[in-house]
Amino acid sequence: MKQIIGIDIGGTKIAIGLFDETGRFIASSTIPTHAQAPFSEAIVRIFEAVDELLGNTTTLTGIGIGCAGPLDTEKGVVQNPYTLSGWENAPIVATLSDRYGCPVRLENDADVALLGEVFAHKKEKPVRNALMLTFGTGVGGAVLHNGKLFKTENFGHPEFGHILVAPGEGECYCGGDGCLEGLASGLALTQQAQALGFEDFQDLVAQGGLQGSGKFLVHQWVERVGRALWTLVHIFSPSMVILGGGAMSSLFDLVNQKITENMQSGIFYKEFALVEASLGAEAGMVGAATLVLPV
Amino acid sequence: MKQIIGIDIGGTKIAIGLFDETGRFIASSTIPTHAQAPFSEAIVRIFEAVDELLGNTTTLTGIGIGCAGPLDTEKGVVQNPYTLSGWENAPIVATLSDRYGCPVRLENDADVALLGEVFAHKKEKPVRNALMLTFGTGVGGAVLHNGKLFKTENFGHPEFGHILVAPGEGECYCGGDGCLEGLASGLALTQQAQALGFEDFQDLVAQGGLQGSGKFLVHQWVERVGRALWTLVHIFSPSMVILGGGAMSSLFDLVNQKITENMQSGIFYKEFALVEASLGAEAGMVGAATLVLPV
Repeated sequence: MKQIIGIDIGGTKIAIGLFDETGRFIASSTIPTHAQAPFSEAIVRIFEAVDELLGNTTTLTGIGIGCAGPLDTEKGVVQNPYTLSGWENAPIVATLSDRYGCPVRLENDADVALLGEVFAHKKEKPVRNALMLTFGTGVGGAVLHNGKLFKTENFGHPEFGHILVAPGEGECYCGGDGCLEGLASGLALTQQAQALGFEDFQDLVAQGGLQGSGKFLVHQWVERVGRALWTLVHIFSPSMVILGGGAMSSLFDLVNQKITENMQSGIFYKEFALVEASLGAEAGMVGAATLVLPV
Repeated sequence: MKQIIGIDIGGTKIAIGLFDETGRFIASSTIPTHAQAPFSEAIVRIFEAVDELLGNTTTLTGIGIGCAGPLDTEKGVVQNPYTLSGWENAPIVATLSDRYGCPVRLENDADVALLGEVFAHKKEKPVRNALMLTFGTGVGGAVLHNGKLFKTENFGHPEFGHILVAPGEGECYCGGDGCLEGLASGLALTQQAQALGFEDFQDLVAQGGLQGSGKFLVHQWVERVGRALWTLVHIFSPSMVILGGGAMSSLFDLVNQKITENMQSGIFYKEFALVEASLGAEAGMVGAATLVLPV
């Protein structure tokens, strides 16, 4: 049986999934990252976990990997991200390729999450232009542009969290004033909700935030998300927009309604599917696997 | 002698330039477009003008064309832009290629203007990532991204004029509120200056606008241009940013100083050259020619 592996490397844990050659999930396992330990230790534990998933009867035809950048995706090297302090110039592609004798591909974690969600939402017509924003601790973003992952020079990842959505309304740690991430991330929402006396943003929403004292915050957030999308859609013209993250899960319907209304009022509007991220923490693992799906 | 032709097709006039194979300017001529007349008439006048420039002794090795979109750049067809009402599905590439027996390439007018300016500002190291904004009647924009012109699906041109720079501060004809073009174009500046009693924005600047009653408008404009660049630079990470248009010509030094200061304060700052567009109306013609420069 021909199978593929998708690996999602995070700062805390590494999720490894086994899929068949159509991308259908078979099994997965999760191991701790121990990010400060050297790569040479981590790779031994990755080998073990992959071996166990494969068992004895599998033909492995490819391994896809998602990992926090900076990366050299062409050379297949992880270049010491902040979240993986022990991984200095870790040649993960060559190491896995040597051991398993199959093609191995490495991409940025936000990019593989996008690919995972596009795969999960796929329609009859292939999606060649998609945009994803994830509202977690920060705001992650990725773009599939004309069939290719959108990157800056030298495999860099664009800083979608630092486009301006409310100039002058709040300094961001990045040095900007009014950035999407500084004002609309999960962390920012928590702080804004706490200032109103709620435990966090989920608590605000749960306690009838849409009607009560948190109403303003909810609508401000939806407005800011809408502004980010207005700007990004006028640049990338995606046919699918995926929104994810904790805050989104309870408010997607509202966001969807407001943003669709707003975008459709524009003369440059081109129809796109606005969908909620559906894979949660598994998006990275699934998307990593799609890197090596047979064409 | 081997030469190339660059053609810039505008709604009012068509500029045609003759260049040598290094892109050095030799001669040019300009003819009226008569945009409402059919393409079949215009092409006869284009033939005449090209023939005259070529004379008898030239070997023509390529023709590059810049034209307002929508275009099918792959098929080489002008698809009836608003500015060229008589040009319905005009097969300009095939028509010129048939007559002159050389490669012909067609690109969007904003894109060729960018290529012209990049060529004019070229350094020892080739520029593979550049961003250009032109503040004219509207705001034109174009991006060279990892060595290729940045386009949306099906040869579409991104709407850089409709990214948000001051949400809620002014409705745009496009349906947005706070778009770059609606608030910071030459037209918008003229209206803002007239509301203060000046003839237009140039008049405001000429009459000591930087100190006098127009000071606020000037600084507001610089601020908004800076916001647009903040957002775009965090997405595209260009190594060269080119700013052009009437308003820019008298204020580039101020814009340069403020924006460089602002951008350098950001933690994601990567050095880029901020330059003023230097070719004026000739950028399109020069950039069109670069489409067919020998590699």
